[in-house]
Amino acid sequence: MQSGPNAIGTLFEPDSVAVVGSLREGGFGGYVTTKHLLDFGYKGKIFPVNPHYDSILGLKVYPTVNEIPEGVDLVIIMTGAGAVPRIMEECVENRTRVAIIVSDGFTERDVEGAGLQRQVSAMARTAGIRLLGPNTVGVANPSNGLVTSPYRIIYERIFSGSIAICGQTGLIGPQNLALEETHYGVSKICDFGNKCDIDEIDLLQYLGGDDQTSVIAFHLEQINNGRAFVEKVREVVPKKPVIVLRPGRTEASRQAMASHTGSLAGDDSVYQGALRQAGALRVDSLAELLGFPRVFACQPLPAGNRLAMITISGGAGVMGVDVAASRGLFMAKLSPSTLNKLAGISPVLAGNPVDLGPALPAYRGGALVTYYPAIVEALLEDPNVDCLALACPWALRKRLTEVFASLLGKYPKTMAAWVPSPSVSGVWEIERDLEILGLPAFADGDTAVKALAMACEYVRIRSSLKDA
Amino acid sequence: MQSGPNAIGTLFEPDSVAVVGSLREGGFGGYVTTKHLLDFGYKGKIFPVNPHYDSILGLKVYPTVNEIPEGVDLVIIMTGAGAVPRIMEECVENRTRVAIIVSDGFTERDVEGAGLQRQVSAMARTAGIRLLGPNTVGVANPSNGLVTSPYRIIYERIFSGSIAICGQTGLIGPQNLALEETHYGVSKICDFGNKCDIDEIDLLQYLGGDDQTSVIAFHLEQINNGRAFVEKVREVVPKKPVIVLRPGRTEASRQAMASHTGSLAGDDSVYQGALRQAGALRVDSLAELLGFPRVFACQPLPAGNRLAMITISGGAGVMGVDVAASRGLFMAKLSPSTLNKLAGISPVLAGNPVDLGPALPAYRGGALVTYYPAIVEALLEDPNVDCLALACPWALRKRLTEVFASLLGKYPKTMAAWVPSPSVSGVWEIERDLEILGLPAFADGDTAVKALAMACEYVRIRSSLKDA
Repeated sequence: MQSGPNAIGTLFEPDSVAVVGSLREGGFGGYVTTKHLLDFGYKGKIFPVNPHYDSILGLKVYPTVNEIPEGVDLVIIMTGAGAVPRIMEECVENRTRVAIIVSDGFTERDVEGAGLQRQVSAMARTAGIRLLGPNTVGVANPSNGLVTSPYRIIYERIFSGSIAICGQTGLIGPQNLALEETHYGVSKICDFGNKCDIDEIDLLQYLGGDDQTSVIAFHLEQINNGRAFVEKVREVVPKKPVIVLRPGRTEASRQAMASHTGSLAGDDSVYQGALRQAGALRVDSLAELLGFPRVFACQPLPAGNRLAMITISGGAGVMGVDVAASRGLFMAKLSPSTLNKLAGISPVLAGNPVDLGPALPAYRGGALVTYYPAIVEALLEDPNVDCLALACPWALRKRLTEVFASLLGKYPKTMAAWVPSPSVSGVWEIERDLEILGLPAFADGDTAVKALAMACEYVRIRSSLKDA
Repeated sequence: MQSGPNAIGTLFEPDSVAVVGSLREGGFGGYVTTKHLLDFGYKGKIFPVNPHYDSILGLKVYPTVNEIPEGVDLVIIMTGAGAVPRIMEECVENRTRVAIIVSDGFTERDVEGAGLQRQVSAMARTAGIRLLGPNTVGVANPSNGLVTSPYRIIYERIFSGSIAICGQTGLIGPQNLALEETHYGVSKICDFGNKCDIDEIDLLQYLGGDDQTSVIAFHLEQINNGRAFVEKVREVVPKKPVIVLRPGRTEASRQAMASHTGSLAGDDSVYQGALRQAGALRVDSLAELLGFPRVFACQPLPAGNRLAMITISGGAGVMGVDVAASRGLFMAKLSPSTLNKLAGISPVLAGNPVDLGPALPAYRGGALVTYYPAIVEALLEDPNVDCLALACPWALRKRLTEVFASLLGKYPKTMAAWVPSPSVSGVWEIERDLEILGLPAFADGDTAVKALAMACEYVRIRSSLKDA
């Protein structure tokens, strides 16, 4: 193996990219990838490779990789599996640095595919070419427009942010996620596919040192080298949170994994405790893996685990408190000054959770725009409050951005919101506008509280690692 | 106490309704409720009550309840708490049958409020008037247009369906839920509020015998009489599923509950095991409580627990299998005939989960409309398959209704769908259209599988109760 960071740097920031595969227009293939590179603004050299074309999209097409007149940083291969060894030979001759094998039909398929994968891996290893995949949609790096998905992406912008997502699934890629509509800020995305070479340790090493990345989310069906991964997690966690989703808990799903990425998960349950001790944060679903990092990406870390909550109903408050308590948060004991401020707005508000419900009838329309931010600010000012879970009243809708524009960044407290609503058609726009401001909004109060609990857990872990 | 069913029948199907409270136009109050009754098509008599008006919305206004020239079936009271005893006196004189006290400021507020609640309850009990609340938004019955919410509802239709929802929270009401946009089919909604009289036992008794209701969902912070409730659950479960969400698991949330509905939850953990034995289905969140009943309401019950799954990615399949296995479902062993049919479409499809991912590139556009329904039908035809969790390819979008229109109802198998999508703005419309057809769609594959697992659990429970 080569040294990780440089090769992974090349994977995400190549000066030149070759795309080997079908150049027919459509929803999948080399044409799609080439067009993505142009559309997302990739500024390096692009070499489409196909024997049947002279040029596409204003770019010269080369019949083979080895006819490209310079060594290519990154070759993306999306031919049939059978052609991959030949193309790998061309890459060796070309002195290619990194290759992404998008093609499927390898270890995940059958014994022949497994043989093919071993063959291709050996060729690359011998030549010092690092490999991502096979059976992957590759990577995305919004900061330089490198987006390798062979599936058509329905939007032409991915916002540069600080969330890195790595996994053994194309589910995490822009062809499948509403990154644009939700204004989700990505630093790097990497689909490992069958993971014949580049793996979670390479990525953790790279992302740990990547200034654009503030939080790292891993979907890991199988861990190549548990001990080394745990050590790497321990190294990175003091710098930034590492969140891990581990499917494959059941025998049935381990069988499904074998036909997905071809990897028979060893019994790495032995590493689970170690991973936790090393400071990895655990989530239970892909929705959590993708959602919770938004708190780390756009909110300050909490100084402690004392939670204040604003709800629109007592029932939602009770459920939120349940979730908080079961995840290590304490309901903040509001200071007398805060209770006075709340009571000044309405006597029924003086508590934690602050339940807007009983006060809403008296403060409809215009007045809500005044008293809601006053409540939020009273809680943010309270020295007994570390983090704040906020129900945003639907009655305020589009005025919520106005409310939060002046509040965000003013206090070093961690906030997570939700927008309870009798409408589903427009809520995503409100949530997107809050996300743009830096206030992450979640599906409901329970989820917002869980996200805050994870931020608190990270602070606790990081502090215990420092003390150790 | 009166006999439950008759009084609860009157609560949901009154021939006359009086609305006592402010008649000022706005977002809350008697004007709003009166307008709702008219807008939602309530055909009974409506008597607005307020000393300061002669008429509103074409209706004569009465200065007091006792000046209404006939006994009123249902009086909805939304004045200040202090006025409620006087209005209750009027109700007694009027020979009112049931009253909903929307007003807050009772046991949930303070000692004085608790005294007021005892006073009002005693008056009603003596006169044989049944009470819902106080501190409630009341009930909804879409089949006759009885919608009592004092908060403005942003839509004018609630679809008649077979899901009954009861809870100690206004969160379950149409003022807070996107019932219209999601085409959610309700039979009855009831917010218990402080639950000074009408409670979960009354509702379970009534809904168990209500022909319009096929599934009953309960949010219960506190259970008045655990033993009686457990017995009633055991009585109803053979007829229809009873789903229960129990917040208040933690000491912190029990405190929050006290200031929500004023009820100190006794330690009813003793009833938890009994509830399960009686056959109640348990959920962990409001989202599940509201979402899972859709499977019971519009899909046949599964004959067994053998699951087939269609995914768009191997990773999603693995996660779905994990959830299935951990909730008592088995991955169906597809019959040779089914495997042949799948392989005939594409060799990479022959398995369970059926992963569309590898086959998608070859079947873009038009072909997908043919081969996707063929896959679904092959699985539905398989005698080894009892239920089906379906990823609906985003590529088909609006054509999904065409696909499922001919498949739904054709096979006695239980289906639940999800629509993985790179867009959030239009997905709700696709999901709504599927719901109209009778195919419930969930946020993701995990949730669809959990919903199916609950349907299987119900069948298992019902059968074991029959055997006992």
